[in-house]
Amino acid sequence: MWLHTSTRLQFHAEVATPFLLMLRPRSGWQQWVSREQYVLSPSVPAVEFTDAFGNLCQRLVSPVGPFSILASADVECAEWADAAPGAHFVEVQFLPESVLPFLLPSRYCESDFFYDMASELTAGCAPGWDQVNAIIDYVARSIRYTPGSGTTLRSAREVNGSSDAVCRDMTHLAIALTRALSIPARMVVGYLEPLAPMDLHAWFEAFVGGRWYTFDPTQQSLQGGRVAIAYGRDAADVAIFTQFGDPVDLVSMVVDVQRTTAPPA
Amino acid sequence: MWLHTSTRLQFHAEVATPFLLMLRPRSGWQQWVSREQYVLSPSVPAVEFTDAFGNLCQRLVSPVGPFSILASADVECAEWADAAPGAHFVEVQFLPESVLPFLLPSRYCESDFFYDMASELTAGCAPGWDQVNAIIDYVARSIRYTPGSGTTLRSAREVNGSSDAVCRDMTHLAIALTRALSIPARMVVGYLEPLAPMDLHAWFEAFVGGRWYTFDPTQQSLQGGRVAIAYGRDAADVAIFTQFGDPVDLVSMVVDVQRTTAPPA
Amino acid sequence: MWLHTSTRLQFHAEVATPFLLMLRPRSGWQQWVSREQYVLSPSVPAVEFTDAFGNLCQRLVSPVGPFSILASADVECAEWADAAPGAHFVEVQFLPESVLPFLLPSRYCESDFFYDMASELTAGCAPGWDQVNAIIDYVARSIRYTPGSGTTLRSAREVNGSSDAVCRDMTHLAIALTRALSIPARMVVGYLEPLAPMDLHAWFEAFVGGRWYTFDPTQQSLQGGRVAIAYGRDAADVAIFTQFGDPVDLVSMVVDVQRTTAPPA
Amino acid sequence: MWLHTSTRLQFHAEVATPFLLMLRPRSGWQQWVSREQYVLSPSVPAVEFTDAFGNLCQRLVSPVGPFSILASADVECAEWADAAPGAHFVEVQFLPESVLPFLLPSRYCESDFFYDMASELTAGCAPGWDQVNAIIDYVARSIRYTPGSGTTLRSAREVNGSSDAVCRDMTHLAIALTRALSIPARMVVGYLEPLAPMDLHAWFEAFVGGRWYTFDPTQQSLQGGRVAIAYGRDAADVAIFTQFGDPVDLVSMVVDVQRTTAPPA
Repeated sequence: MWLHTSTRLQFHAEVATPFLLMLRPRSGWQQWVSREQYVLSPSVPAVEFTDAFGNLCQRLVSPVGPFSILASADVECAEWADAAPGAHFVEVQFLPESVLPFLLPSRYCESDFFYDMASELTAGCAPGWDQVNAIIDYVARSIRYTPGSGTTLRSAREVNGSSDAVCRDMTHLAIALTRALSIPARMVVGYLEPLAPMDLHAWFEAFVGGRWYTFDPTQQSLQGGRVAIAYGRDAADVAIFTQFGDPVDLVSMVVDVQRTTAPPA
Repeated sequence: MWLHTSTRLQFHAEVATPFLLMLRPRSGWQQWVSREQYVLSPSVPAVEFTDAFGNLCQRLVSPVGPFSILASADVECAEWADAAPGAHFVEVQFLPESVLPFLLPSRYCESDFFYDMASELTAGCAPGWDQVNAIIDYVARSIRYTPGSGTTLRSAREVNGSSDAVCRDMTHLAIALTRALSIPARMVVGYLEPLAPMDLHAWFEAFVGGRWYTFDPTQQSLQGGRVAIAYGRDAADVAIFTQFGDPVDLVSMVVDVQRTTAPPA
Repeated sequence: MWLHTSTRLQFHAEVATPFLLMLRPRSGWQQWVSREQYVLSPSVPAVEFTDAFGNLCQRLVSPVGPFSILASADVECAEWADAAPGAHFVEVQFLPESVLPFLLPSRYCESDFFYDMASELTAGCAPGWDQVNAIIDYVARSIRYTPGSGTTLRSAREVNGSSDAVCRDMTHLAIALTRALSIPARMVVGYLEPLAPMDLHAWFEAFVGGRWYTFDPTQQSLQGGRVAIAYGRDAADVAIFTQFGDPVDLVSMVVDVQRTTAPPA
Repeated sequence: MWLHTSTRLQFHAEVATPFLLMLRPRSGWQQWVSREQYVLSPSVPAVEFTDAFGNLCQRLVSPVGPFSILASADVECAEWADAAPGAHFVEVQFLPESVLPFLLPSRYCESDFFYDMASELTAGCAPGWDQVNAIIDYVARSIRYTPGSGTTLRSAREVNGSSDAVCRDMTHLAIALTRALSIPARMVVGYLEPLAPMDLHAWFEAFVGGRWYTFDPTQQSLQGGRVAIAYGRDAADVAIFTQFGDPVDLVSMVVDVQRTTAPPA
């Protein structure tokens, strides 16, 4: 399926402010970016680099006054994410090197605190995909997915026991539980076509059966229409924008996803 | 200045054929890609990765029959490349690590053969930018730039002494001479706005005075309007397409560059 | 000065257990490793790789029963770490890419919580080195460095307000405060020659004035004799060993540092 | 088996001269470095870095006058390299990214010239390991391995048709032929225990059946006792030392390999 995705950010800065941005989906084996647009208004110098997770990042200094960023793309992606009941646990010694950082605790996923809980939740499950599936079942059952319920970032420990949470929070908890079982888990920020109300979405991937699989504690159907913008250990790595210095006013943020058709040759 | 650049490749393959492609300009400190389009027709699965030089590369298997690729972009770049007479030679021990591979001989730039010649050509020059400038003077004076004069790749040793050569050949010779002086030099393939007849162009950058500077043995004016597509040690690293297996018929290749305006916000 | 450093770990495992190890100091511009030894007993297959921070890491599966690891090295390092009062703050847009990850909050350094506190602590300081120096003054004054006072890892938020802490805790707090000022800070685990009682030590480096400088909240004299083993965002990245699965018994850990002389040619 | 390996280089420089060195074997899945020594005499500042192929490289500026480097190691490695008749050809689209650079022509391996010859030599072979084996058979039969027969580096095209050649030359030819079949091939420089007369040795690895396999046109028995020092595309990438500026006198080079026993714990 083809999607047209866009994010438009409008800022108003009192002083020139350095930004790090991550708004550019990359073509990978799960998605193909055919058209893309990245407009800075007013136009300012910007430099792009690839971070340690392979994300395309942009650096720039915002002007004083109004400043807007439009990042849009036409992307082909799958209708459904792959499900793989029974996909096996990969022992740590056989994991690819690139996957190892996703075993460690991180800012918002204190996996070191969830060892016992993860074992209990997954008792009786075959090691691997089924364990992760039991984890997202638990998260989905025990916490009500409530878009807009939280503006501050919460870590897995803070989320655990909450009644309401946003996608990012639920993902943090699920990642922490997954890593506690020595299963690599990485956060994804991106677009999800059927999401309502529309916003950027967060989910995660777990490495079982020799590859990364999509898991989403808020969408157990494994609904596709997903366009990944950035991968990382948790929300600290995949902020779509990070600004430094005195806080800048985010005047508006508009996210849109539309079904579209293949681009003409 | 804003440029709209495009390359359209049309192939006809008898059998499904694996390709490596490098057609996607990246935003860097010398250019900003605001819009981009990459269309495969018919649509086939493709995967993108970043190579050791930072180039965005695509892998795919062409279908049997006709197959076309269109890669276009709207890019902001400078009217003129920087000139820096007197920019100093950087001693090897102070070069950044990332620059060191560009000191070594490579497939088409046998710098190990040009030590004496490079010394003679640059006798009396201040070490650094002025040496490289003397080298491109020599290449420009001694070889007539003749677009279309050669279809097979020639190495610096083969080019040296020729009367006619294409941009790629002249660049190979200049790079080999530059590296022979222990100055890092890397090849660039990209677009040059005023080129006639229009085609993809090859030039190089040398690392002097603490940064990379543009040099072009075919365009001594340092004319800007340059959009880099790929960087590498020589033409072996920066082929815009590499196909494996039995040769595939390249039916047509159309390159176009037009001045345009800044994209609307 | 030349140091002979060694760490000897003895484990007893009930089941074969995967380990990640980081015990190999690397030669860099601050230290030169002239001799090195890494002995596994009994000998088991091990694979080495370089992580995203440049650390040499080893992977292996421990045997059942007793298992020991000896890592020793002869290293040349400086008598004193460089002090640079007045070294300037580097604005984010001018930081090297490789330094950017050390601006973000991490598992044990929740820099996002320390913005106001960091500003107050450094009020009146010139931006850069002097700010970081004020931060370690504060940490050293407000928390009593008490080796052995804590066995569990504590994050900066947990450490802040404590009366006693180990080097790792104090470093976490100082890093979080430093990053809150948009100054990159990275944790170092290694050897410190005059440390008593001898143990592995933790300190940090901050990027000011265009390079990394050593800071140590427990050793304000900038005493040298430091041999870095690993760099990372915080203790989660630089554990000298990480084991997966059921806990393995660490029977003993002996760390030793001795002054030695240059090796014979 | 355990080997004690050493290389001792003695230089005499008229002027301070920058060097790049590659003398440090790394622990990998085929070898484990348990002890290591790297002595510069006189002692000069040196910095180590990892190149794009994963080799540990050292940079230093030699003093004026005599200068020696001793690099020794105790390494565990296999008695025999793995043979895998029938190991299958991996189609380009399924090769890991890290392997792709080893498909391209390089300074001394002009694979683009050997397409027809490689096809003829391997006619009737199953694609993969058997093709590479046929190539080394051909190289071993058609060229007499003559240590000391050549001091200058020769490329595959120059070697092809020679009657005598050194290990490096024969390896270049075999690599070029292998890559001409779209099989990745990389050069290895290292120690080979039974070599007589003792010297550093060159061989190569080809990627078939999903992994790298050892091939050696001078040692068809797949004799083990191999300690790899460096990997690269060809001799340009894996020079154990590269010096820049006026030539420095290499007074002597002594290479030694002895069987030894496992180090005491």
